[in-house]
Amino acid sequence: MQALELNKAFTLLESGPVVLVTTLDGQSDNIMTISWTMVMDFTPVFAITTGAWNHSFVALKKSRECVIAFPTVDMLDTVVGIGTCSGADTDKFAKFKLTPEPGKLVKAPLIKECLANIECKVIDIIEKHNILVLEGVAAYLDVERQEKRMVHAVGDGSFIVDGRRIDRRKMMASKLPDGV
Amino acid sequence: MQALELNKAFTLLESGPVVLVTTLDGQSDNIMTISWTMVMDFTPVFAITTGAWNHSFVALKKSRECVIAFPTVDMLDTVVGIGTCSGADTDKFAKFKLTPEPGKLVKAPLIKECLANIECKVIDIIEKHNILVLEGVAAYLDVERQEKRMVHAVGDGSFIVDGRRIDRRKMMASKLPDGV
Repeated sequence: MQALELNKAFTLLESGPVVLVTTLDGQSDNIMTISWTMVMDFTPVFAITTGAWNHSFVALKKSRECVIAFPTVDMLDTVVGIGTCSGADTDKFAKFKLTPEPGKLVKAPLIKECLANIECKVIDIIEKHNILVLEGVAAYLDVERQEKRMVHAVGDGSFIVDGRRIDRRKMMASKLPDGV
Repeated sequence: MQALELNKAFTLLESGPVVLVTTLDGQSDNIMTISWTMVMDFTPVFAITTGAWNHSFVALKKSRECVIAFPTVDMLDTVVGIGTCSGADTDKFAKFKLTPEPGKLVKAPLIKECLANIECKVIDIIEKHNILVLEGVAAYLDVERQEKRMVHAVGDGSFIVDGRRIDRRKMMASKLPDGV
Protein backbone atom coordinates (compact mmCIF):
# COMPACT_ATOMS: atom_id res chain seq x y z
CA MET A 1 0.00 0.00 0.00
CA GLN A 2 1.14 3.50 -0.82
CA ALA A 3 1.36 6.09 1.97
CA LEU A 4 -1.47 8.62 1.91
CA GLU A 5 -0.84 12.15 3.19
CA LEU A 6 -2.24 12.32 6.72
CA ASN A 7 -4.13 15.55 6.00
CA LYS A 8 -6.19 13.67 3.39
CA ALA A 9 -7.06 10.71 5.62
CA PHE A 10 -10.30 12.26 6.91
CA THR A 11 -11.71 12.12 3.36
CA LEU A 12 -11.85 8.33 3.66
CA LEU A 13 -14.25 8.45 6.60
CA GLU A 14 -16.18 11.65 5.89
CA SER A 15 -18.72 10.04 3.57
CA GLY A 16 -19.80 7.54 6.22
CA PRO A 17 -18.75 4.15 4.84
CA VAL A 18 -18.89 0.91 6.78
CA VAL A 19 -15.38 0.24 8.10
CA LEU A 20 -13.41 -2.55 9.71
CA VAL A 21 -11.45 -1.81 12.89
CA THR A 22 -8.55 -4.07 13.78
CA THR A 23 -7.02 -4.48 17.22
CA LEU A 24 -4.30 -6.50 18.91
CA ASP A 25 -4.93 -7.38 22.54
CA GLY A 26 -1.30 -8.37 23.05
CA GLN A 27 -1.82 -11.89 21.78
CA SER A 28 -4.23 -12.07 18.88
CA ASP A 29 -5.53 -9.83 16.13
CA ASN A 30 -9.25 -9.12 15.93
CA ILE A 31 -11.58 -7.21 13.59
CA MET A 32 -14.95 -5.55 14.06
CA THR A 33 -17.36 -4.01 11.56
CA ILE A 34 -18.75 -0.59 12.47
CA SER A 35 -20.59 2.26 10.84
CA TRP A 36 -21.04 4.44 13.93
CA THR A 37 -18.11 6.76 13.21
CA MET A 38 -17.58 10.52 12.89
CA VAL A 39 -14.85 12.83 11.65
CA MET A 40 -13.99 15.39 14.37
CA ASP A 41 -11.26 17.42 12.69
CA PHE A 42 -8.94 17.41 9.68
CA THR A 43 -5.70 16.46 11.49
CA PRO A 44 -7.43 13.83 11.58
CA VAL A 45 -9.35 13.01 14.76
CA PHE A 46 -12.24 10.53 14.62
CA ALA A 47 -14.91 9.28 17.02
CA ILE A 48 -16.31 5.77 17.10
CA THR A 49 -19.11 4.46 19.26
CA THR A 50 -18.25 1.18 20.93
CA GLY A 51 -18.34 -0.41 24.34
CA ALA A 52 -18.13 -3.56 26.36
CA TRP A 53 -20.66 -5.26 24.05
CA ASN A 54 -17.86 -5.50 21.45
CA HIS A 55 -15.10 -8.01 22.10
CA SER A 56 -12.63 -5.52 20.56
CA PHE A 57 -13.33 -2.98 23.31
CA VAL A 58 -11.02 -4.68 25.83
CA ALA A 59 -8.15 -4.61 23.31
CA LEU A 60 -8.89 -0.97 22.47
CA LYS A 61 -8.79 0.04 26.13
CA LYS A 62 -5.67 -2.00 26.87
CA SER A 63 -3.59 -1.26 23.78
CA ARG A 64 -5.04 2.18 22.99
CA GLU A 65 -4.35 1.48 19.33
CA CYS A 66 -6.29 0.29 16.29
CA VAL A 67 -6.43 0.42 12.51
CA ILE A 68 -9.47 1.63 10.57
CA ALA A 69 -9.61 -0.35 7.30
CA PHE A 70 -11.83 0.57 4.35
CA PRO A 71 -13.47 -2.36 2.53
CA THR A 72 -15.19 -1.98 -0.85
CA VAL A 73 -18.42 -3.38 -2.26
CA ASP A 74 -16.83 -6.62 -3.46
CA MET A 75 -16.03 -7.35 0.22
CA LEU A 76 -19.59 -6.80 1.50
CA ASP A 77 -20.25 -10.38 2.58
CA THR A 78 -16.93 -10.39 4.45
CA VAL A 79 -17.93 -7.13 6.14
CA VAL A 80 -21.32 -8.51 7.20
CA GLY A 81 -19.73 -11.80 8.25
CA ILE A 82 -17.21 -10.03 10.46
CA GLY A 83 -20.02 -8.01 12.00
CA THR A 84 -22.09 -11.05 12.88
CA CYS A 85 -19.54 -13.24 14.69
CA SER A 86 -17.31 -12.55 17.68
CA GLY A 87 -13.56 -12.47 18.20
CA ALA A 88 -14.27 -14.19 21.51
CA ASP A 89 -14.49 -17.53 19.68
CA THR A 90 -13.37 -16.78 16.10
CA ASP A 91 -10.07 -15.94 14.43
CA LYS A 92 -11.59 -13.53 11.94
CA PHE A 93 -8.46 -13.06 9.81
CA ALA A 94 -8.36 -16.82 9.25
CA LYS A 95 -12.11 -17.32 8.83
CA PHE A 96 -12.46 -14.54 6.25
CA LYS A 97 -9.10 -15.15 4.55
CA LEU A 98 -7.81 -11.64 5.22
CA THR A 99 -4.12 -10.78 5.34
CA PRO A 100 -2.79 -8.83 8.33
CA GLU A 101 0.07 -6.49 7.44
CA PRO A 102 2.26 -4.69 9.97
CA GLY A 103 1.70 -0.97 10.46
CA LYS A 104 4.43 1.53 11.29
CA LEU A 105 3.22 3.25 14.43
CA VAL A 106 0.69 0.84 15.95
CA LYS A 107 0.75 -2.90 16.61
CA ALA A 108 -2.79 -3.53 15.29
CA PRO A 109 -2.58 -4.88 11.73
CA LEU A 110 -3.55 -3.27 8.46
CA ILE A 111 -5.84 -5.36 6.24
CA LYS A 112 -4.10 -5.94 2.92
CA GLU A 113 -7.31 -6.61 0.97
CA CYS A 114 -8.86 -3.23 1.88
CA LEU A 115 -8.77 -0.08 -0.27
CA ALA A 116 -7.22 1.99 2.51
CA ASN A 117 -6.03 1.79 6.12
CA ILE A 118 -5.52 4.40 8.84
CA GLU A 119 -3.34 3.65 11.88
CA CYS A 120 -4.93 5.22 14.96
CA LYS A 121 -4.09 5.95 18.58
CA VAL A 122 -6.91 6.10 21.16
CA ILE A 123 -6.55 9.61 22.63
CA ASP A 124 -9.63 9.66 24.84
CA ILE A 125 -12.43 7.38 26.04
CA ILE A 126 -15.73 9.08 26.94
CA GLU A 127 -17.16 6.24 29.02
CA LYS A 128 -20.45 8.02 29.71
CA HIS A 129 -21.32 7.91 26.01
CA ASN A 130 -19.29 4.89 24.84
CA ILE A 131 -17.29 7.17 22.53
CA LEU A 132 -13.66 6.51 21.66
CA VAL A 133 -11.68 9.42 20.30
CA LEU A 134 -8.99 8.35 17.81
CA GLU A 135 -6.11 10.23 16.24
CA GLY A 136 -4.95 9.03 12.82
CA VAL A 137 -1.15 8.75 12.79
CA ALA A 138 -0.46 7.09 9.42
CA ALA A 139 -2.57 6.31 6.35
CA TYR A 140 -2.29 4.10 3.27
CA LEU A 141 -4.14 3.75 -0.01
CA ASP A 142 -4.03 0.85 -2.49
CA VAL A 143 -3.68 2.96 -5.62
CA GLU A 144 -3.72 -0.05 -7.94
CA ARG A 145 -7.05 -1.41 -6.75
CA GLN A 146 -9.77 -1.33 -9.43
CA GLU A 147 -12.83 -1.46 -7.16
CA LYS A 148 -13.01 1.77 -5.15
CA ARG A 149 -16.73 1.94 -4.29
CA MET A 150 -17.37 1.77 -0.56
CA VAL A 151 -20.67 0.79 1.09
CA HIS A 152 -22.89 2.51 3.62
CA ALA A 153 -25.00 0.63 6.15
CA VAL A 154 -28.59 1.76 6.42
CA GLY A 155 -29.10 -0.09 9.69
CA ASP A 156 -32.04 -2.20 8.52
CA GLY A 157 -29.91 -4.91 6.93
CA SER A 158 -29.51 -3.09 3.62
CA PHE A 159 -26.45 -1.31 2.28
CA ILE A 160 -26.04 1.59 -0.15
CA VAL A 161 -23.17 1.39 -2.63
CA ASP A 162 -21.28 4.56 -3.60
CA GLY A 163 -22.87 6.02 -6.74
CA ARG A 164 -21.64 8.78 -9.02
CA ARG A 165 -19.40 11.57 -7.82
CA ILE A 166 -20.31 15.25 -8.18
CA ASP A 167 -17.63 17.97 -8.11
CA ARG A 168 -18.39 21.13 -6.14
CA ARG A 169 -14.78 22.02 -5.42
CA LYS A 170 -15.10 25.60 -6.67
CA MET A 171 -18.23 26.34 -4.61
CA MET A 172 -16.60 24.73 -1.55
CA ALA A 173 -13.20 26.43 -1.90
CA SER A 174 -13.64 28.68 1.14
CA LYS A 175 -14.35 25.67 3.38
CA LEU A 176 -11.70 23.19 2.25
CA PRO A 177 -8.59 22.65 4.36
CA ASP A 178 -5.25 23.40 2.65
CA GLY A 179 -3.84 20.76 0.36
CA VAL A 180 -6.87 18.44 0.25
CA MET B 1 -44.83 14.92 6.08
CA GLN B 2 -45.84 11.57 7.48
CA ALA B 3 -44.68 10.55 10.95
CA LEU B 4 -41.86 7.99 10.94
CA GLU B 5 -41.58 5.50 13.80
CA LEU B 6 -38.89 6.82 16.16
CA ASN B 7 -37.13 3.44 16.30
CA LYS B 8 -36.47 3.72 12.55
CA ALA B 9 -35.09 7.26 12.63
CA PHE B 10 -31.45 6.15 13.10
CA THR B 11 -31.59 4.52 9.65
CA LEU B 12 -31.73 8.00 8.10
CA LEU B 13 -28.36 9.00 9.56
CA GLU B 14 -26.55 5.64 9.69
CA SER B 15 -25.30 5.77 6.08
CA GLY B 16 -23.52 9.08 6.65
CA PRO B 17 -25.37 11.56 4.43
CA VAL B 18 -24.79 15.30 4.45
CA VAL B 19 -27.54 16.84 6.58
CA LEU B 20 -28.98 20.23 7.39
CA VAL B 21 -29.43 21.21 11.04
CA THR B 22 -31.96 23.92 11.87
CA THR B 23 -32.03 25.99 15.04
CA LEU B 24 -34.06 28.81 16.54
CA ASP B 25 -32.13 31.17 18.79
CA GLY B 26 -35.34 32.65 20.18
CA GLN B 27 -35.73 35.15 17.37
CA SER B 28 -34.69 33.74 14.01
CA ASP B 29 -34.35 30.38 12.33
CA ASN B 30 -30.97 29.30 11.02
CA ILE B 31 -29.59 26.30 9.09
CA MET B 32 -26.15 24.72 8.88
CA THR B 33 -24.79 21.98 6.63
CA ILE B 34 -22.82 19.22 8.36
CA SER B 35 -21.51 15.77 7.64
CA TRP B 36 -19.65 15.20 10.92
CA THR B 37 -22.38 13.11 12.54
CA MET B 38 -22.62 9.69 14.21
CA VAL B 39 -25.37 7.34 15.34
CA MET B 40 -24.83 6.39 19.01
CA ASP B 41 -27.79 4.12 19.67
CA PHE B 42 -31.07 2.98 18.19
CA THR B 43 -33.43 4.96 20.47
CA PRO B 44 -32.08 7.17 18.67
CA VAL B 45 -29.15 9.13 20.09
CA PHE B 46 -26.82 11.00 17.72
CA ALA B 47 -23.55 12.92 18.02
CA ILE B 48 -22.60 15.92 15.93
CA THR B 49 -19.30 17.77 15.95
CA THR B 50 -19.75 21.52 16.13
CA GLY B 51 -18.48 24.45 18.10
CA ALA B 52 -18.17 28.22 18.37
CA TRP B 53 -16.96 28.39 14.75
CA ASN B 54 -20.55 27.71 13.67
CA HIS B 55 -23.07 30.52 14.14
CA SER B 56 -25.68 27.85 15.02
CA PHE B 57 -23.71 26.78 18.09
CA VAL B 58 -24.99 29.67 20.24
CA ALA B 59 -28.60 28.76 19.40
CA LEU B 60 -27.90 25.06 20.08
CA LYS B 61 -26.44 25.84 23.50
CA LYS B 62 -29.21 28.28 24.40
CA SER B 63 -32.26 26.45 23.08
CA ARG B 64 -30.91 22.90 23.45
CA GLU B 65 -33.04 21.93 20.47
CA CYS B 66 -32.58 21.42 16.74
CA VAL B 67 -33.95 19.57 13.72
CA ILE B 68 -31.82 17.32 11.53
CA ALA B 69 -33.19 17.58 7.96
CA PHE B 70 -32.23 15.20 5.14
CA PRO B 71 -31.74 16.81 1.72
CA THR B 72 -31.47 14.77 -1.49
CA VAL B 73 -29.21 15.05 -4.52
CA ASP B 74 -31.47 17.53 -6.34
CA MET B 75 -30.81 19.92 -3.41
CA LEU B 76 -27.00 19.65 -3.54
CA ASP B 77 -26.34 23.25 -4.56
CA THR B 78 -28.63 24.44 -1.77
CA VAL B 79 -26.73 22.23 0.67
CA VAL B 80 -23.35 23.60 -0.45
CA GLY B 81 -24.70 27.15 -0.49
CA ILE B 82 -25.97 26.82 3.10
CA GLY B 83 -22.58 25.46 4.13
CA THR B 84 -20.65 28.35 2.64
CA CYS B 85 -22.47 31.35 4.09
CA SER B 86 -23.25 32.33 7.68
CA GLY B 87 -26.47 32.85 9.61
CA ALA B 88 -24.68 35.82 11.19
CA ASP B 89 -25.53 37.92 8.14
CA THR B 90 -27.90 35.75 6.05
CA ASP B 91 -31.50 34.58 6.40
CA LYS B 92 -30.85 31.16 4.90
CA PHE B 93 -34.49 30.07 4.65
CA ALA B 94 -35.19 33.18 2.53
CA LYS B 95 -31.97 33.04 0.50
CA PHE B 96 -32.40 29.37 -0.45
CA LYS B 97 -36.21 29.49 -0.75
CA LEU B 98 -36.78 26.82 1.88
CA THR B 99 -40.01 26.46 3.82
CA PRO B 100 -39.84 26.23 7.63
CA GLU B 101 -42.56 24.04 9.11
CA PRO B 102 -43.41 23.80 12.80
CA GLY B 103 -42.33 20.68 14.67
CA LYS B 104 -44.24 19.11 17.53
CA LEU B 105 -41.73 18.90 20.35
CA VAL B 106 -39.04 21.46 19.48
CA LYS B 107 -39.22 25.08 18.33
CA ALA B 108 -36.56 24.69 15.61
CA PRO B 109 -38.29 24.30 12.23
CA LEU B 110 -38.54 21.28 9.95
CA ILE B 111 -37.53 21.91 6.32
CA LYS B 112 -40.51 21.09 4.10
CA GLU B 113 -38.40 20.47 0.96
CA CYS B 114 -36.29 17.74 2.62
CA LEU B 115 -36.91 13.99 2.38
CA ALA B 116 -37.02 13.57 6.15
CA ASN B 117 -36.69 15.49 9.39
CA ILE B 118 -35.84 14.47 12.96
CA GLU B 119 -36.70 16.73 15.90
CA CYS B 120 -33.88 16.57 18.45
CA LYS B 121 -33.13 17.66 22.02
CA VAL B 122 -29.53 18.40 23.04
CA ILE B 123 -28.94 16.01 25.94
CA ASP B 124 -25.23 16.67 26.51
CA ILE B 125 -22.43 18.93 25.33
CA ILE B 126 -18.89 17.51 25.51
CA GLU B 127 -17.04 20.84 25.33
CA LYS B 128 -13.60 19.23 25.38
CA HIS B 129 -14.27 17.56 22.03
CA ASN B 130 -16.90 19.90 20.53
CA ILE B 131 -19.41 17.05 20.51
CA LEU B 132 -23.12 17.61 20.95
CA VAL B 133 -25.19 14.60 21.96
CA LEU B 134 -28.74 14.69 20.56
CA GLU B 135 -31.80 12.61 21.29
CA GLY B 136 -34.31 12.24 18.47
CA VAL B 137 -37.84 12.85 19.81
CA ALA B 138 -39.96 12.85 16.63
CA ALA B 139 -39.32 11.95 13.00
CA TYR B 140 -41.00 12.52 9.65
CA LEU B 141 -40.66 11.17 6.13
CA ASP B 142 -42.03 12.63 2.90
CA VAL B 143 -43.36 9.38 1.48
CA GLU B 144 -44.55 10.98 -1.77
CA ARG B 145 -41.17 12.39 -2.74
CA GLN B 146 -39.74 10.85 -5.92
CA GLU B 147 -36.06 11.66 -5.37
CA LYS B 148 -34.79 9.71 -2.39
CA ARG B 149 -31.03 9.58 -3.07
CA MET B 150 -29.00 11.37 -0.42
CA VAL B 151 -25.42 12.65 -0.86
CA HIS B 152 -22.23 12.04 1.07
CA ALA B 153 -19.49 14.66 1.40
CA VAL B 154 -15.98 13.41 0.72
CA GLY B 155 -14.42 16.49 2.28
CA ASP B 156 -12.38 17.52 -0.77
CA GLY B 157 -15.24 19.42 -2.44
CA SER B 158 -16.73 16.34 -4.10
CA PHE B 159 -19.88 14.47 -3.14
CA ILE B 160 -20.94 10.84 -3.61
CA VAL B 161 -24.56 10.17 -4.54
CA ASP B 162 -26.36 7.11 -3.14
CA GLY B 163 -25.98 4.24 -5.60
CA ARG B 164 -27.74 0.89 -5.68
CA ARG B 165 -29.04 -0.82 -2.57
CA ILE B 166 -27.98 -4.34 -1.55
CA ASP B 167 -30.14 -6.43 0.78
CA ARG B 168 -28.34 -8.43 3.50
CA ARG B 169 -31.25 -8.52 5.90
CA LYS B 170 -31.11 -12.30 6.40
CA MET B 171 -27.37 -12.33 7.14
CA MET B 172 -27.79 -9.36 9.50
CA ALA B 173 -30.87 -10.68 11.34
CA SER B 174 -29.05 -11.34 14.61
CA LYS B 175 -27.82 -7.73 14.75
CA LEU B 176 -30.93 -5.77 13.78
CA PRO B 177 -32.99 -4.05 16.45
CA ASP B 178 -36.64 -5.14 16.75
CA GLY B 179 -39.10 -3.70 14.28
CA VAL B 180 -36.60 -2.03 11.93
